[in-house]
Amino acid sequence: MKTNVIVGQSGGPTAAINASLAGVIRGAMEQAEIGEIYGALNGIQGLLAEQIIDLRKSMKNAEDFDRLAATPAMALGSCRFKMPSAPDAAYDKILEIFQKYNIGMFFYIGGNDSMDTVKQLSAFFKEKNVDIRCVGVPKTIDNDLPLTDHTPGFASAAKYVATSIAEIYRDSSVYDMFSVIIVEIMGRNAGWLTASAALARDTGCAAPQLIYVPEKAFDPDDFINRVSEYSKKNQLLIVAVSEGIKLANGEYVSASGTAVDAFGHKMLSGTGKYLEDLVKEKLGCKVRSLELSVLQRAASHIASGTDISEAQRIGREGVLAAARGETGIMMAFNRISQSPYLVSISGVPIEKCANLEKEIPDDWMNENGCDVNENMMEYLRPLVVGRPPYFEKNGMQEFFALDKTIVKA
Amino acid sequence: MKTNVIVGQSGGPTAAINASLAGVIRGAMEQAEIGEIYGALNGIQGLLAEQIIDLRKSMKNAEDFDRLAATPAMALGSCRFKMPSAPDAAYDKILEIFQKYNIGMFFYIGGNDSMDTVKQLSAFFKEKNVDIRCVGVPKTIDNDLPLTDHTPGFASAAKYVATSIAEIYRDSSVYDMFSVIIVEIMGRNAGWLTASAALARDTGCAAPQLIYVPEKAFDPDDFINRVSEYSKKNQLLIVAVSEGIKLANGEYVSASGTAVDAFGHKMLSGTGKYLEDLVKEKLGCKVRSLELSVLQRAASHIASGTDISEAQRIGREGVLAAARGETGIMMAFNRISQSPYLVSISGVPIEKCANLEKEIPDDWMNENGCDVNENMMEYLRPLVVGRPPYFEKNGMQEFFALDKTIVKA
Repeated sequence: MKTNVIVGQSGGPTAAINASLAGVIRGAMEQAEIGEIYGALNGIQGLLAEQIIDLRKSMKNAEDFDRLAATPAMALGSCRFKMPSAPDAAYDKILEIFQKYNIGMFFYIGGNDSMDTVKQLSAFFKEKNVDIRCVGVPKTIDNDLPLTDHTPGFASAAKYVATSIAEIYRDSSVYDMFSVIIVEIMGRNAGWLTASAALARDTGCAAPQLIYVPEKAFDPDDFINRVSEYSKKNQLLIVAVSEGIKLANGEYVSASGTAVDAFGHKMLSGTGKYLEDLVKEKLGCKVRSLELSVLQRAASHIASGTDISEAQRIGREGVLAAARGETGIMMAFNRISQSPYLVSISGVPIEKCANLEKEIPDDWMNENGCDVNENMMEYLRPLVVGRPPYFEKNGMQEFFALDKTIVKA
Repeated sequence: MKTNVIVGQSGGPTAAINASLAGVIRGAMEQAEIGEIYGALNGIQGLLAEQIIDLRKSMKNAEDFDRLAATPAMALGSCRFKMPSAPDAAYDKILEIFQKYNIGMFFYIGGNDSMDTVKQLSAFFKEKNVDIRCVGVPKTIDNDLPLTDHTPGFASAAKYVATSIAEIYRDSSVYDMFSVIIVEIMGRNAGWLTASAALARDTGCAAPQLIYVPEKAFDPDDFINRVSEYSKKNQLLIVAVSEGIKLANGEYVSASGTAVDAFGHKMLSGTGKYLEDLVKEKLGCKVRSLELSVLQRAASHIASGTDISEAQRIGREGVLAAARGETGIMMAFNRISQSPYLVSISGVPIEKCANLEKEIPDDWMNENGCDVNENMMEYLRPLVVGRPPYFEKNGMQEFFALDKTIVKA
């Protein structure tokens, strides 16, 4: 008798998360032992409400995999649901639904919290002695999951960030005067995405000249000194800063100051805005800040070809691992060669990655803590190479939509 | 004896302004009567300082034209120099330099202020009875120059804006809750670029559901009512708003409120931020604002193929017009067919476009003034079609750099 599988997506959007979904569907379709390929809408939350669709129905020809892969943000929808740390009624309900739908494999594409779900469920199923294999497929623009060289979604966001910084540099360098531009980039605890701004230099510009990440305490006086020194002999200074940088006392920089909104409410000013105000206050030079905001998460129009291709591969490999009998794992990239760039994919124990964060190694930043060094550049470069298949109609992207008809077991 | 020509760029950056430069160089190279092809660095300002380069030197093979065209923001540098309204020493100096370099044709690629320069200089040369032909090549993301169907640079910015809105919509629609996103788009007096956000709907999404342009007085109460009504039956509301919208009393919305920066200084909150604060204050629902900022000006990575191709054509046609003896003109597009989309290019009298702004026609907006209608959609659609040649190395854009060796006459 064939076994059915189910896949869900969770956490924050990326440009590559549907590529992993396409990979899971492709992998499952290739396995003769797999029957139905279900999708859970809005992750575990939708699963609990039996919001389940039939994914085979959506894939009508070979190009549909590329079309799904080119579509940013969860095609299945997302949730922010954290499994209780001890099994409760939700666990029993999931098991009941899985048995009702004859599910033998569960794939969850997501970040830290989603890997925790995989960990909890795989342990619960082992404890209950049922053969439902649980495999985590990583995705996060933060690139902060351990035991994998990098995470799908990161490289596309990195390419967007670096491309935007290079264009901002070109845009602002046309005038003959000194100015400072502060670009705030996502990342509460890990600075990988902010570090990737350094790739802009490969276009031949000096920017970003300063890079501030959460891993290093931020010193406002040192920052102002550097801006002041730089202004003496240069025209344009671009600062890449993580939203999550903290002062030496551990306080978020964005919580400093006393910014007040248009209605007089005290507010967090935003890290970039705070640095802008600081430069204006201390140096009085021309300065502006901008946030890449949610734009950096789902910018499929400038996705990395390497990322989209790898995201499909890792999804497919997740199915192969489950079919081999593996469970309680997260699929991971292992960089086996730098030149040419090559990765292998295998499962790593989920308990060694769930709820843990990978920070930038100390020796990938330079000594003053406000720039990356060549270790980081070598790491980043191959990840952003290439452009994936792209679909456009009348100048606008074509997004692939799944058939969301709810199925009954 | 051959005549020499000079070209300059001025105003704010666009993704297409170097495509027009490539077109001017190509057009000039094709004319047997033209000798040297000079470029003025930083527009009129650099010209006055004799910062002049030899553009033939930079173009070594046919692909170089495409490479220059794919490079955003002025390759020659820009300036914000307004010619005095009555001829003064600067006029004499320019004439002296033009005669010294044997310049017979002057091409200025820019927006409103640059067209004023063309107007003043062509009148001055006529008055002085010297045959130096002055031709304006339009560019502005604002699309606000009269007598031309549209302006180079606008469509690429429009494509960036609409693509970003479509991706923001996908990004934010993965969760199952109501939220409002306000996207602030450039445009002080004309709302063309904000209107182009409507193209996002061609990807199949409902966003942006509200569009506010400077041409229509903004009514905060009506806005809040609409958001409130929409929230009752929908999940995600995206508002596209021009930075330059004004209240009925003519005051800029961005000047409302009493926002205070991190150091206690009163500041303009930004139009999007003000609307965000307004929604938070009046409705208390989840709301965030973001500015597309300078990102929208020079985003060559998502340029419109139509735009980049037309920008080259209009630059080349400018040279042909000057070679025919025309002067005191701005080159303009005339849409001669909508389906298939076709434009012709000819010169229009510069005094009929310099210092004038083209606003959105009243009957291109719907009655309630907060959305565009099908007239606008038909106008916009063909402009964003296609992807231009794109050059990438190791995943990063390759920008073309001119040989900036200063020449002596």
